Amino acid sequence: AVKHFRSDKTTKTPESSAPSIQGLQDPQGIVQETQDPQTTQNRQDSPNSSELDTVGGAYTLPHPIWSTDELEKVEITHNPPKGIVEHLAYWNVQTLRRSFDFFSGFSSGKRTEKKWLTRFVFLETVAGVPGMVAAMTRHLKSLRRMSRDHGWIHTLLEEAENERMHLMTVIQLKDAGILMRLAIMGSQGVFVTLFSLCYLVSPRFCHKFVGYLEEEAVKTYTGCIMDIDSGNLVSWKTKPAPEIAINYWNLARNATMRDVILNIRADEAHHRLVNHTLGELDTDDTNPYPPGY
Amino acid sequence: AVKHFRSDKTTKTPESSAPSIQGLQDPQGIVQETQDPQTTQNRQDSPNSSELDTVGGAYTLPHPIWSTDELEKVEITHNPPKGIVEHLAYWNVQTLRRSFDFFSGFSSGKRTEKKWLTRFVFLETVAGVPGMVAAMTRHLKSLRRMSRDHGWIHTLLEEAENERMHLMTVIQLKDAGILMRLAIMGSQGVFVTLFSLCYLVSPRFCHKFVGYLEEEAVKTYTGCIMDIDSGNLVSWKTKPAPEIAINYWNLARNATMRDVILNIRADEAHHRLVNHTLGELDTDDTNPYPPGY
Ligand SMILES: [Fe+2]
Ligand SMILES: [Fe+2]
Ligand SMILES: [Fe+2]
Ligand SMILES: [Fe+2]
Repeated sequence: AVKHFRSDKTTKTPESSAPSIQGLQDPQGIVQETQDPQTTQNRQDSPNSSELDTVGGAYTLPHPIWSTDELEKVEITHNPPKGIVEHLAYWNVQTLRRSFDFFSGFSSGKRTEKKWLTRFVFLETVAGVPGMVAAMTRHLKSLRRMSRDHGWIHTLLEEAENERMHLMTVIQLKDAGILMRLAIMGSQGVFVTLFSLCYLVSPRFCHKFVGYLEEEAVKTYTGCIMDIDSGNLVSWKTKPAPEIAINYWNLARNATMRDVILNIRADEAHHRLVNHTLGELDTDDTNPYPPGY
Repeated sequence: AVKHFRSDKTTKTPESSAPSIQGLQDPQGIVQETQDPQTTQNRQDSPNSSELDTVGGAYTLPHPIWSTDELEKVEITHNPPKGIVEHLAYWNVQTLRRSFDFFSGFSSGKRTEKKWLTRFVFLETVAGVPGMVAAMTRHLKSLRRMSRDHGWIHTLLEEAENERMHLMTVIQLKDAGILMRLAIMGSQGVFVTLFSLCYLVSPRFCHKFVGYLEEEAVKTYTGCIMDIDSGNLVSWKTKPAPEIAINYWNLARNATMRDVILNIRADEAHHRLVNHTLGELDTDDTNPYPPGY
């Protein structure tokens, strides 16, 4: 970052750092007067849905808050590919998964906590890319063509942020070493480039790709839950959920890592459905999903 | 776009197009049960702030709904640049503005409705770029560094969408010809590239650049209001506001283009304040602005 000739390094409040704009209320005034819920609250014990959804002082876009029933009922499903593009997307995901399993040592030996966390951290750094790239692509297209977006952008942004929250959660449990950091940075460079190009050529391929990716994610997280219940991850049955997860998914104060994984899995199943759907629409069809769905 | 071997071209509803996920409610169920306001509603005559903010069937992020008092009190202000980076940003904006005024013929001859609309449409295709580029840059950085964003992303996304709504509004009044479309596409290519590179090098420069740009925007829209009140744009005093504008800014059913321009100007003053503030923070400082501010 470029160093700037600023002697005053304290964090400035809006009132002191910019000329006052007459007529615009200061932030405190606005916050108190608004009802601005950011999450879709389905929990019966939370009748007040007007709270801002803060995650450690920051704010998040609307996203589903899963009920216990919904969490337990997530199933592994498969949407059979139809046509060349969908088959290509499916084949790509299968190849990537098998290579990743092999090279990460996941398919051989015991599935330890260390292996699980490494896998989750790495994959969730990648998972946050498609939604944001797709959103920006559609945003720029809407600007230069001066045409409507038909409601896709917000859903894609919600997905991107949700995946980023997955990462912010799992990273509470793992310190990434220098090699892993380099691998993550390299992967981002490659994946952002490839996915951007693909999205310009065929959004349909991309959404189906993500749909099939999420099918694998649901399998993986289901396997994780099995390990928690009867494998090497038994400690996660009682390991406390990180604060950021409790805030984000509105978990109970005594929630565990098992609860967290259940919620992450439900999110992945949700993205699976949304992306399979978007992958079967035309790009100027209206997105059927409202915010927070 | 790539043609796909899909015989069934009808828009699919989520229920029919993807395998049902047991436990996840269908979209209709979710929508009915949620309270999900998307706008900050400050209007006293709208006590119910739980309505989804729909814009012609789509959805928007939280954004300020201006009161009449706020609208009339927007002033032209200037934040004096301090240090090399800020002076560079200011000089860039001044140069760009003067060149644009000259080459668009805005500084010479009468300011006609045609000239105003051409200017608005062109500039608003560009205005939606910085917020989205900045948001994506911070999002990708948060992913690869596995670090917190401190609440900047949502504010930047809100700005990007707000500018896009400016465009969607003014485009109701103007058909862009082929030359203009080419100019817009070319500008986007150049600006997205340059701004992305600049944001990686110096976010501070970029936010100050946008801050100074918005200072100019407030001047321009103030001049437009003057033309409406006593110049060549008198017709806009009674010209009905486009439906998308009435929905987005919660305007009265009989709102006029003058009301629209007042609201756009207030948005620009808001971005002016936010960007000047962000341009004076360190990139890992917490963003003081909550959603919809
Ligand atoms: Fe994820
Ligand atoms: Fe995912
Ligand atoms: Fe604008
Ligand atoms: Fe602007």
